[in-house]
Amino acid sequence: MRISLAATSKQLSALDFLFKPDSIAVIGASHDPEKFSGWILPGMLQVGYKGRIYPINPKRSEISGLKCYASLSSLPEVPKLALITIPGAGVKQILSDCIKAGVKASIIITSEIQYETSDPNKERIELVGEARRNGMRICGPNCEGVIYLKTGTWATFLSHPSPLQGEIAFVTQSGGVGEFVLHKLWERQVGASGWVSSGNEMDLQVADYIEYFAKDDETKVISVFLEAARDGPKFIRAARLAFEEQKPLVILKVGRSERARRTALTHTGAIAGRFGVYMGLFRQLGIVRARNLQELIELPLALVWEPLPAGNRVGIVADSGGMAALFADQVSQEGLSIPDLEEQTRARLAEVLPSKAKATNPLDITALVGPKEIVGILESIGPIMLNDKTCDMLILGVSYWPRTVFFEALEALGRLYKIANELGKPLIPVFTAITPKTHSDLLSRAAELKLPIYLTPETAVASARALAEYSEARREGLDS
Amino acid sequence: MRISLAATSKQLSALDFLFKPDSIAVIGASHDPEKFSGWILPGMLQVGYKGRIYPINPKRSEISGLKCYASLSSLPEVPKLALITIPGAGVKQILSDCIKAGVKASIIITSEIQYETSDPNKERIELVGEARRNGMRICGPNCEGVIYLKTGTWATFLSHPSPLQGEIAFVTQSGGVGEFVLHKLWERQVGASGWVSSGNEMDLQVADYIEYFAKDDETKVISVFLEAARDGPKFIRAARLAFEEQKPLVILKVGRSERARRTALTHTGAIAGRFGVYMGLFRQLGIVRARNLQELIELPLALVWEPLPAGNRVGIVADSGGMAALFADQVSQEGLSIPDLEEQTRARLAEVLPSKAKATNPLDITALVGPKEIVGILESIGPIMLNDKTCDMLILGVSYWPRTVFFEALEALGRLYKIANELGKPLIPVFTAITPKTHSDLLSRAAELKLPIYLTPETAVASARALAEYSEARREGLDS
Repeated sequence: MRISLAATSKQLSALDFLFKPDSIAVIGASHDPEKFSGWILPGMLQVGYKGRIYPINPKRSEISGLKCYASLSSLPEVPKLALITIPGAGVKQILSDCIKAGVKASIIITSEIQYETSDPNKERIELVGEARRNGMRICGPNCEGVIYLKTGTWATFLSHPSPLQGEIAFVTQSGGVGEFVLHKLWERQVGASGWVSSGNEMDLQVADYIEYFAKDDETKVISVFLEAARDGPKFIRAARLAFEEQKPLVILKVGRSERARRTALTHTGAIAGRFGVYMGLFRQLGIVRARNLQELIELPLALVWEPLPAGNRVGIVADSGGMAALFADQVSQEGLSIPDLEEQTRARLAEVLPSKAKATNPLDITALVGPKEIVGILESIGPIMLNDKTCDMLILGVSYWPRTVFFEALEALGRLYKIANELGKPLIPVFTAITPKTHSDLLSRAAELKLPIYLTPETAVASARALAEYSEARREGLDS
Repeated sequence: MRISLAATSKQLSALDFLFKPDSIAVIGASHDPEKFSGWILPGMLQVGYKGRIYPINPKRSEISGLKCYASLSSLPEVPKLALITIPGAGVKQILSDCIKAGVKASIIITSEIQYETSDPNKERIELVGEARRNGMRICGPNCEGVIYLKTGTWATFLSHPSPLQGEIAFVTQSGGVGEFVLHKLWERQVGASGWVSSGNEMDLQVADYIEYFAKDDETKVISVFLEAARDGPKFIRAARLAFEEQKPLVILKVGRSERARRTALTHTGAIAGRFGVYMGLFRQLGIVRARNLQELIELPLALVWEPLPAGNRVGIVADSGGMAALFADQVSQEGLSIPDLEEQTRARLAEVLPSKAKATNPLDITALVGPKEIVGILESIGPIMLNDKTCDMLILGVSYWPRTVFFEALEALGRLYKIANELGKPLIPVFTAITPKTHSDLLSRAAELKLPIYLTPETAVASARALAEYSEARREGLDS
C-alpha cells in the first residue's frame, strides 16, 4: 500500500525534530536490561543527549536515575520527539495522543501496530494524514530508531561502546545491517553524522532521509542499505538532490536473486523488482554501488575524506612484492588502470632507490624498508609518485608496520596527504599488519587526520574504484 | 633457474629440523629494537621456544638475557637450525660453515646472497647440492622464516601479540602476506599449526612445504599464498599428496593481470604464466581457491572445523529480514542453492514460530528475538532446520547479539554444532554485531568449541562455497 502524499518543505523541516529534538519522551521505557526497551535510557545517557529526557511508564517512578512519568499528559512540556516501544495494541492510541498533544516527530520501535477495523490500510493512511496535517512525521514502525551525534540524539535501543561524531550518514531499511554499521564504525574509530533505521516506513521513507542528509551540514557522504524504494519518483528526486548537493550516495541494494527478492520485498510500491533496473538507475544517478556490507563502511570512508581523482589511473607503492602483485590484480579486476610511470618520475625514483630496485608501477620498496626507514620513504618516494602526471591516485601498502615509529609514520602520512590534497589526488594508505584490536589509538589518530586507513588490499582497491566512478559521474553530470 | 634435484624421503625428513629443531643458532642476532634482527630473540622468548637458543654476534656477550657467542664454532653443540640474518656478503661463507658443521636446516632472512664469481647461478646450485648431500635443507633467502607452535619454534623476525596453536598451516611466498595472516589469526583468536615464508626458494619450494604439512599430524588444512610454482610437476605431486591425506588445500594465486604477472614473476621455472592454466589445474587437483586475503584466512576456518556437506543446498536462519535477503543474494552469487523446506520442517517450525511468521528458507526469526530468547531459538529452531533433508548446511545469522546472554548463547551453539556434526552438516554461525576488539573472549571460546564464527555475511557464504566445492572434489576424486 503506497502513501502518495508528497512531502512539502514544511514537512521536511519536521525531520529536524526527529534528528535534533530538544526533548524526547520514551514511551514504554523499561528498567530491565534483558529487554530491548531497557537499553534505551542507558544508551541515551552514555552518549550524552543534550536535551530533556522523559521516561514514560506508569509502573515506575524512576528509571536509570531519571524521573519516570505515568503518561504523555503528565509531562512538564510537550516533547518534540516521542520514542514508542509499547506493545502493538496500544500504539495507535498513543500516536493519536502524540498528534493531538503537538509532538513533532515519532519513532515506532514496536514491530506491528494493531488497528481496530478490517481495513488497516485505510486506518494507517488516515493516521499518517492526520499526523502530517498536524506537523508530525513518523519513523517506523518496526525500526531501530535514530541517532544524530552532534546533538547526542540516541533514540534507539541499540547500544555500542562509544559512538563517534563524524561526517557519514547511514540510512538502513534493515535494523540488523544498522547494528553492523554501528559496530564496525566504532571498531574502525570512524564517526557518523547521523544514522536511521527506517523500518516499515508507514510515513517517512529512505528517500526522505536521503533528502534530509543531502541538506544536512554535518553530512558529507550518505550510505544506504536498500531493500526496495517504496516510491520510485521520490527516490529518484532524492538521489538527484544528493548529487546536486555534492554528497556522494553509496548504496548496497539487496534483491539480486529471486530468493532474496521474495525475502526482502514484502513491501509494496517498489519502483522495480528487477535488480538490473536498479543498477541502471544507480549509474544514471551517480550512485556508488556497494557490493557487500564491508563496502558499505569502506567506500564512504574514502569518499568523505579524499579529493576526487581526475581519472582511473592508479600508482601503487608496496613494501612486499606479493602485496604489490595482489594490488595489481585487484586494480585490474576493478577496471582501473596501472600506468607506466613518466620517465622523469623513474629518474627521480632512481636517485632514491638502491641500484637494483626497479622504478616501476607497482613500485616494490622492500629493499628499502627497515623499521626505521618508513618515515623517510613516505617523505621521499611519496611526493615523487604523487607528482607523476600519469597517476590519478596513489595506493600505499605497508605490510611490515614499523611498530617503533608508529605515530611518526602516521604523521608523515598526514603531511603526504596534504601534498596529495593540493594535487587533487587521493592517497589511499593500506596497513595490512595492524588490527583494530591492537591499534585503536592509531586508527583514532588517522581519523583525526581524516586519513581513511584500509586494512586489506581488496577494500582499499574497491574504494579507489568508488572514487574513480563517482568522479566520472561528477564530470559527466546527470541528464537533466 | 630451476633446481631439478628431486627430494628424497631422507631429505624430506630434514624439514623436521626446520620446524621442530631442538636448538637454534641466530647468526647476526641484534639487541637493537629498531632493526628487524633485533626482534627475533624477543619473539622466540615470548612464544616460549622449548629448545636451546644460541645468539651469534661477535660484538656482544649477551642479547635479550641470553649468552651470545662469537661464531658457529664456539657453540657448545652443533645447532639443528641456523637462522641467518647477516649482510649478503657473508652469507655464502656462513652457509658453507653450517653445512660443514652438520647443521640440519638453515633459514636465510638476508634478501640477497653475494656470490664470488660471474656465474652466481652455478654457485648457488653447487651450494644447494652440497647442502643436500650433507643432509641440510635451506629456507629462503629473502624470507621471513618459520613458525611451528607445538614446539614453540619462532624462527622469524615477525612478532605479534600472542600466537595461538591450532590446526591450519600457512605457506606464503610473500612475507607481507605472511605478516597479514599472523595478525588476522591472532585478532580472530584462531590458531595455526605452522607457518612458513618461502622467499626466493633457492632450495625448498612451496611444494616442499605443502608436502610437509600434508604429512604433519598437527595440520588439518593448508593455506597458501602463491605467486608462481617453481617446479610444476612437483607442485602437482604435492597437491595430490595433500588431497590423498585429506588435507584441504586453499590457495590465493596472484598474477591474474598482466601487470601483476610482471610484478610477481621475476621468478623463473613457473609452471605457467597464465592465470587460467592455474585455475584449471586447481579444479583438477581439488584445490579451493581463495579470491582475496580475507578468504585466505576465512575459508580454512570452515574447512578445519566443519564436516563436509553432502551437497550445495543452504538453509538460512537470520534475525533480520535485511540480513536474510543479503544472505540469499550472496548464496546465489556463489552458485549455491536455497531449497524450499520440506513440508514436515514447515509444520515443525509452525509449532515454534509466532502465527504471523513464515516458515520459509531463508527463515527470518526477527519476531522471536529479544535479548533473552536467542538461546531458546538456537535450541528449538536450530535442530529443526538441521534435520531438514533438503538442507546440506545451515547458515545462522545473528545481528542483534544478546549481550546479556553472550556465553549461554555460545554454549547453546556449541551443542547445536554437535548435532550438526552428527548429521554431517556444516553449521556456519555469523555474528555481525560483534567485533574482535570487544569480543575477544567470545571468539576465543568459539575457537575452543571449534566453531568458525564469521563476522560478515560475505565471508560466511564464501566459506559455505568452499565447503561445497571441496566436498564435491572429494566425492568425485582426482583423475589417477
